[in-house]
Amino acid sequence: MTTPATEHNHGYSHDRDRYSARLKRIEGQVRGLQRMIESDQYCIDILTQISAITSALENVGLSLLDEHLKHCVAGAVTGASASGDQVAADAVDAKVEEAMKAIKRMVKS
Amino acid sequence: MTTPATEHNHGYSHDRDRYSARLKRIEGQVRGLQRMIESDQYCIDILTQISAITSALENVGLSLLDEHLKHCVAGAVTGASASGDQVAADAVDAKVEEAMKAIKRMVKS
Amino acid sequence: MTTPATEHNHGYSHDRDRYSARLKRIEGQVRGLQRMIESDQYCIDILTQISAITSALENVGLSLLDEHLKHCVAGAVTGASASGDQVAADAVDAKVEEAMKAIKRMVKS
Amino acid sequence: MTTPATEHNHGYSHDRDRYSARLKRIEGQVRGLQRMIESDQYCIDILTQISAITSALENVGLSLLDEHLKHCVAGAVTGASASGDQVAADAVDAKVEEAMKAIKRMVKS
Repeated sequence: MTTPATEHNHGYSHDRDRYSARLKRIEGQVRGLQRMIESDQYCIDILTQISAITSALENVGLSLLDEHLKHCVAGAVTGASASGDQVAADAVDAKVEEAMKAIKRMVKS
Repeated sequence: MTTPATEHNHGYSHDRDRYSARLKRIEGQVRGLQRMIESDQYCIDILTQISAITSALENVGLSLLDEHLKHCVAGAVTGASASGDQVAADAVDAKVEEAMKAIKRMVKS
Repeated sequence: MTTPATEHNHGYSHDRDRYSARLKRIEGQVRGLQRMIESDQYCIDILTQISAITSALENVGLSLLDEHLKHCVAGAVTGASASGDQVAADAVDAKVEEAMKAIKRMVKS
Repeated sequence: MTTPATEHNHGYSHDRDRYSARLKRIEGQVRGLQRMIESDQYCIDILTQISAITSALENVGLSLLDEHLKHCVAGAVTGASASGDQVAADAVDAKVEEAMKAIKRMVKS
């Protein structure tokens, strides 16, 4: 009944149930797609459904990114209090590079 | 040994099993995402996985669109043999408008 | 003073002036971006403007694609009247493959 | 030998000439598009060129975003040294919200 003390305290952790629910819904939508294919639904209707799922997935990604940026930034700010500015700035740059790679994949896909 | 006369003869019908398999894999990937969230995986790794699934879904959509265009175009061409050109051209325009709406959603999402 | 008899009668030809006007406006927007950079405008405002231009360019692409599909399809339908169905269907398939490559680039960028 | 105290010290400022050059090239590409339309080039070739320009513009946006995140984060980290953590964290959250709106527009267009 106690929340386990975890070292992995990611930005999205406090919202884990909401993310699970969103993904469960998306999983159901993908199963719905399979039924559409199996019952020979009209192609254009399937494409409409695919765009809806793609968009829902992207929105999950954007929410995670939002919390990641706030979290990683908050972490870097906290780090900046404890350490010198240069060390913190380097850590921040590394985090931003990593986030930018994820953003590029989202923009380019 | 005869191909069954079916009313629902969509572009993707002959490939239905392959589409089902692709969607089943995507469904598994979405379940994998849920496990990542539940086991508190690193945010950026989850984003990488989301981009992979989004891309796989888009590719299913593009394959369906390809077959739809060939099928609807083939249908319109067949129609053009039976009817006058103007009637066929109008039917083709209506099909293209419909496909363009789906393409716009794919491009804009 | 005569319009030259041209073999290249593309789908967008009758609308050429409107496309030129849209592109001239986009060219002006890109010049506006340069002024924003040179006068040290706020980064986020520049990003907003970039998204507006990207979207305007995509819309030009989607309009051209719409007319191309109607035109190439119309051409294929006309071809189907003159020739046998198989020849026409092959030509249609080739046109669709070509269009799909362009659509993929639009969806994936 | 002192860094000049400037009010407009955006992330991209030290690279302004490089951004100007990239945008000038994009402006030239848009003018090239107009010539393609005016000389009645093949639709698919124009679409290829539009995707190239869209991609180049997105890349400019991603570079600006990268520097903005580093800069705004650096600014927030510096702010965190001078002020209490809560004030800094709020400022960081506001900056992230603003950046996320720009990212959403890039992902969704």
